[in-house]
Amino acid sequence: MRDVCVIGLGLIGGSLVRAASAAGRTVWGATASQATAQAARDDGFDVTGVPEALKRAAESDALVVPAVPMTALPGVLKAIVEHAPKCLVTDVTSVKGPVAAMAERAGITRFVGGHPMAGTAESGWPASDAGLFEGAAWAVCLEYDTAIDDWVAVTRLALDVGAHVVPVTSAMHDAAVARISHLPHLLAAVLAAIGADAGPLALSLAAGSFGDGIRVAGSRPELVQAMTEGNATALLPALDDALGRLGAARGALASTGGLKATIVAGHDAVLEHSRLSTSDGEEGVIDVTAPGADEALLELGENGGRIIAMDRHRATTRTP
Amino acid sequence: MRDVCVIGLGLIGGSLVRAASAAGRTVWGATASQATAQAARDDGFDVTGVPEALKRAAESDALVVPAVPMTALPGVLKAIVEHAPKCLVTDVTSVKGPVAAMAERAGITRFVGGHPMAGTAESGWPASDAGLFEGAAWAVCLEYDTAIDDWVAVTRLALDVGAHVVPVTSAMHDAAVARISHLPHLLAAVLAAIGADAGPLALSLAAGSFGDGIRVAGSRPELVQAMTEGNATALLPALDDALGRLGAARGALASTGGLKATIVAGHDAVLEHSRLSTSDGEEGVIDVTAPGADEALLELGENGGRIIAMDRHRATTRTP
Repeated sequence: MRDVCVIGLGLIGGSLVRAASAAGRTVWGATASQATAQAARDDGFDVTGVPEALKRAAESDALVVPAVPMTALPGVLKAIVEHAPKCLVTDVTSVKGPVAAMAERAGITRFVGGHPMAGTAESGWPASDAGLFEGAAWAVCLEYDTAIDDWVAVTRLALDVGAHVVPVTSAMHDAAVARISHLPHLLAAVLAAIGADAGPLALSLAAGSFGDGIRVAGSRPELVQAMTEGNATALLPALDDALGRLGAARGALASTGGLKATIVAGHDAVLEHSRLSTSDGEEGVIDVTAPGADEALLELGENGGRIIAMDRHRATTRTP
Repeated sequence: MRDVCVIGLGLIGGSLVRAASAAGRTVWGATASQATAQAARDDGFDVTGVPEALKRAAESDALVVPAVPMTALPGVLKAIVEHAPKCLVTDVTSVKGPVAAMAERAGITRFVGGHPMAGTAESGWPASDAGLFEGAAWAVCLEYDTAIDDWVAVTRLALDVGAHVVPVTSAMHDAAVARISHLPHLLAAVLAAIGADAGPLALSLAAGSFGDGIRVAGSRPELVQAMTEGNATALLPALDDALGRLGAARGALASTGGLKATIVAGHDAVLEHSRLSTSDGEEGVIDVTAPGADEALLELGENGGRIIAMDRHRATTRTP
């Protein structure tokens, strides 16, 4: 098993260090914050400064995982090129196409994008948790030029920390998260502002539907801004879709007075989501070394399937 | 204390019968469903058919509470006019202006609109719960022609079952709930449909922000349709507000690439909502028989305040 070097010890990076260590992987971390480094060392983890951690990664051919916000990524990528240029690199940011381009511009030669779909409400090392990734989806990018061995190495790390791997291209990923993550953040922000502008009476009458609808707008604004703006290309059509559907509902209400189409479509969608997420699913196997394996993997992802285990080159899959 | 007659034994009506009974009020219910009537009787409650319940209400000058969906309301109001025309009537539906107009058309002479802001996800007598209204806001309508004694009678029932009373006009209420209840239902429906149309991959990657954002779209479509369509006049400007803000975000993303204004406004709004809902608040007293009491009560509601107790004609108030 390849060693793991995690740069950045916030919620995701910290949880990854904890979980990889608990899974028996050799893992070390680095952070620019003295206080975080000390806290992580006090908890028994192997933490140094960034250059030192990367030099060690170069020596042992470790998998390097920058786990910093997108705005800090260029600096970390530059340090990787300087100290560990031959290492395989993956990331954990919420946008994949722009980050792959950023890695290429930085001169990273072996890059496989990743994105664990795990919590954002809390942050920092104190919030990190070895169980954070348990059962969560972890998108691992498979592009036409990805070396399958590199893809498998990143997949193994995600599986080792308890996640299920969803094989995707960057484009598939970015279009999907624009709709199920970035758009929800913007709708929550708009709803929260409308409620607050309606005044204290409105907030006093607010109950479950408002509380659920605005919850994610309580996330740290700078993180939300980075991920939504970073995915602008995929987010624009998602926003247009929302504007179109909401406008159609507005038009129907003003003309015929009817909202049935909007409400029934939403209810059907909730049932479909619930059916998929509670489905036991069908198990299968993909030999990742077989010809056409990449197409089979991407088809699995497109169908909502996940890899739940790997035994050598055989991936156990589950499709809802 | 005035007796209470509840027509309709679903989630709200059933919970009202249970809570009023637990508070020591004499209460009986009626339902058109034989099965529900039997279930409620088996639980020890006094349940008859609608005409019999209303005749008894007329004899004891009870407060009559139709607790049926808006679509069933005209039939129940007609029965009240037939069997208990002099009784004070309140309701529990989520739209107040249109229901007041409906009551007037039906020939109800003493009507005070009400709306408990309590759960909608489950429904029916089996879901009813004596604790449902504990600490919840209960809007009680105070119009220019409302007899204060009638308003107090409805307020007392809401307080007896554990709710806090928010004094409002129908117009204030309907404008507020359009923004904090009906708009959230439509945004959730739109988001759910977009997620489902994006396909199984998107649903497979969906995590907390999507789950929270679509939750209320799982409510019974016919109830959501009745309440949103019933509040069309107030909902249209709320929808326009949402379209305007979402369109502005779309424009900003397409032109400057920036979403900061939208995201920060949403985050500030969440903090404001959280501040108001966790504030211990300031206690005060309003003598409901004093001149100008109605204005003081409506000002309380407008400021996000609530009545938390009544001792004779003195209302104890709390403002955040």
